[in-house]
Amino acid sequence: MTIHSSVILGTDVEVGEYAVIEMGVRLGDRVRVGSHVVIKEGTVIGNDVEIGDHVILGKRPGSNKKMARKPSNDLGPLTIDSEVTIGSHVTLYTGLSVAEGVFIGDHVSIREQVFIDKLTIIGRHAMIEPNTRIGKGVTIQTGCYVTADTTVEDSVFIGPCCSMSNDKYMASGKGTHTGPYIKQNAKIGNHATLLPAITIGENAIIGAGAVVTKDVPDGVISYGNPSKAKT
Amino acid sequence: MTIHSSVILGTDVEVGEYAVIEMGVRLGDRVRVGSHVVIKEGTVIGNDVEIGDHVILGKRPGSNKKMARKPSNDLGPLTIDSEVTIGSHVTLYTGLSVAEGVFIGDHVSIREQVFIDKLTIIGRHAMIEPNTRIGKGVTIQTGCYVTADTTVEDSVFIGPCCSMSNDKYMASGKGTHTGPYIKQNAKIGNHATLLPAITIGENAIIGAGAVVTKDVPDGVISYGNPSKAKT
Amino acid sequence: MTIHSSVILGTDVEVGEYAVIEMGVRLGDRVRVGSHVVIKEGTVIGNDVEIGDHVILGKRPGSNKKMARKPSNDLGPLTIDSEVTIGSHVTLYTGLSVAEGVFIGDHVSIREQVFIDKLTIIGRHAMIEPNTRIGKGVTIQTGCYVTADTTVEDSVFIGPCCSMSNDKYMASGKGTHTGPYIKQNAKIGNHATLLPAITIGENAIIGAGAVVTKDVPDGVISYGNPSKAKT
Repeated sequence: MTIHSSVILGTDVEVGEYAVIEMGVRLGDRVRVGSHVVIKEGTVIGNDVEIGDHVILGKRPGSNKKMARKPSNDLGPLTIDSEVTIGSHVTLYTGLSVAEGVFIGDHVSIREQVFIDKLTIIGRHAMIEPNTRIGKGVTIQTGCYVTADTTVEDSVFIGPCCSMSNDKYMASGKGTHTGPYIKQNAKIGNHATLLPAITIGENAIIGAGAVVTKDVPDGVISYGNPSKAKT
Repeated sequence: MTIHSSVILGTDVEVGEYAVIEMGVRLGDRVRVGSHVVIKEGTVIGNDVEIGDHVILGKRPGSNKKMARKPSNDLGPLTIDSEVTIGSHVTLYTGLSVAEGVFIGDHVSIREQVFIDKLTIIGRHAMIEPNTRIGKGVTIQTGCYVTADTTVEDSVFIGPCCSMSNDKYMASGKGTHTGPYIKQNAKIGNHATLLPAITIGENAIIGAGAVVTKDVPDGVISYGNPSKAKT
Repeated sequence: MTIHSSVILGTDVEVGEYAVIEMGVRLGDRVRVGSHVVIKEGTVIGNDVEIGDHVILGKRPGSNKKMARKPSNDLGPLTIDSEVTIGSHVTLYTGLSVAEGVFIGDHVSIREQVFIDKLTIIGRHAMIEPNTRIGKGVTIQTGCYVTADTTVEDSVFIGPCCSMSNDKYMASGKGTHTGPYIKQNAKIGNHATLLPAITIGENAIIGAGAVVTKDVPDGVISYGNPSKAKT
């Protein structure tokens, strides 16, 4: 392993083979770091955090000449609170904040300027874009795509392989970018499609495979393509 | 590389750079292990197995306080039979059994308590959940999601990016969890959605993008949202 | 790090910890190689290329006894032109050519016999199959699946999580394999499904969640399952 001399380690920290821990990283007590993990400059990790093998923590966003959204230079560090569990082959960016007790599955990637609140579960292979807030006790199942500029309130359930979008005009340069707003306790069936800027109401239920093109009021069950309220 | 002194290696085994092989692992003859591979305690691998770079074999399941399904402590080892090919960036769990001649693509993750029978193909980025049985000569194409508690019989074809679910009540704590039951020779088009506990009959054909909400009888062609038999 | 003695390095190249660079690789000036990267035999990389951590470059295709499409032995090297940015946990195959200024996101995998033209963006977790040509200035968003034998012309926009297929008969051995042909400036909404051998016309717009079963003429807006032209 390669640990920079400035790294601050808590008590009883275990670091796996061939791990790389860069300048200014802080690890709390009883943190377990898997093999081949890369923890980048300035990342802050609490107590009792488990980090699987082949994880990359604190990646800085990149870009090319065509990209509309240029990454900020001032994102702040990646911060991971206590009792978080991180699977294998995960990529977490700078400027992401993960609260206590969150579970992040294998092969997940989560971008900058995201907040994930306590005890939330992010399923394997899920993809979360920037500028997004995910509440407490949320379940985002395996293979979900959460677009940028999205809000997911507390206790929401999102089934496997759901997809969202945030740009009604599909990169035409018109309009603003707004993802869905999903209110508390809503449940979204697997493989559903959510269009930009829609609101899913409290306790609403979206059927599997639904294509949601309009707001869904509180408590309403909606399904189909385009999705319609059950009558 | 880092190989524990208790590891049993067959003849003509090649191990890549920076690989980590833990206590009690057994590798058969002519196994090729890529660079940065991690093989965890107790994993058993047959002859003529190819393991790509950055693969993790024998991961133990994790959890957090919110999860309904707690991992068992007694899953048994990961066992990989002869002539299996494993791509790069793959995560395979303990308690998974992979039969002779199976092909597993890059970026795949497969959980515990799964059996995959001979010559089956698991496409890149596919995700397979626990307590699932996949038959002989099955093709599960790239990006598919196979939910927990699922049965896929022999010679089934599942097109790219299909999704399934196993919990009709979406984490409400009601009902039991049952995935689809897909009978032999069924063919499922790309990006189809299967609801919990449905049966897809022998030689049935499901159209691309179909949302299957009810059982499909043997030999029937079904498509649409919700999917209906072709008339 | 482990660098073969035959590797040709440009000026100001930086190579991360535990990287492996095999025989005959050429790196241009100012290339940055992340930690744990594996660059396989014969790969050719231009100037000012950034390669994230845990990337695998120049993988050779594998197969098993059941696979219809056997990999060629003569694919040529992976070639990456100048100013390309590659994220983390990426797998790129031999016989792939990436033009100047392309951006490839984290967790992407791209197969052999693919050409990606200048300034194109390949989103995170995207999967691209063999024998496919992608034009200039294209955006393929996060989680997209591009099937084999596909053409995507210049300036096309493909939203997140779209899926395609190339085999109408689903591995029955009938017919030829042909993916979609997507003409310039077409825009495809998120989570859309494209069937084999269809043509999407110039400036056509496909709605989110659409299932496209027939050709879509130039400039037409089409959505639904099956998708129909807006009237």
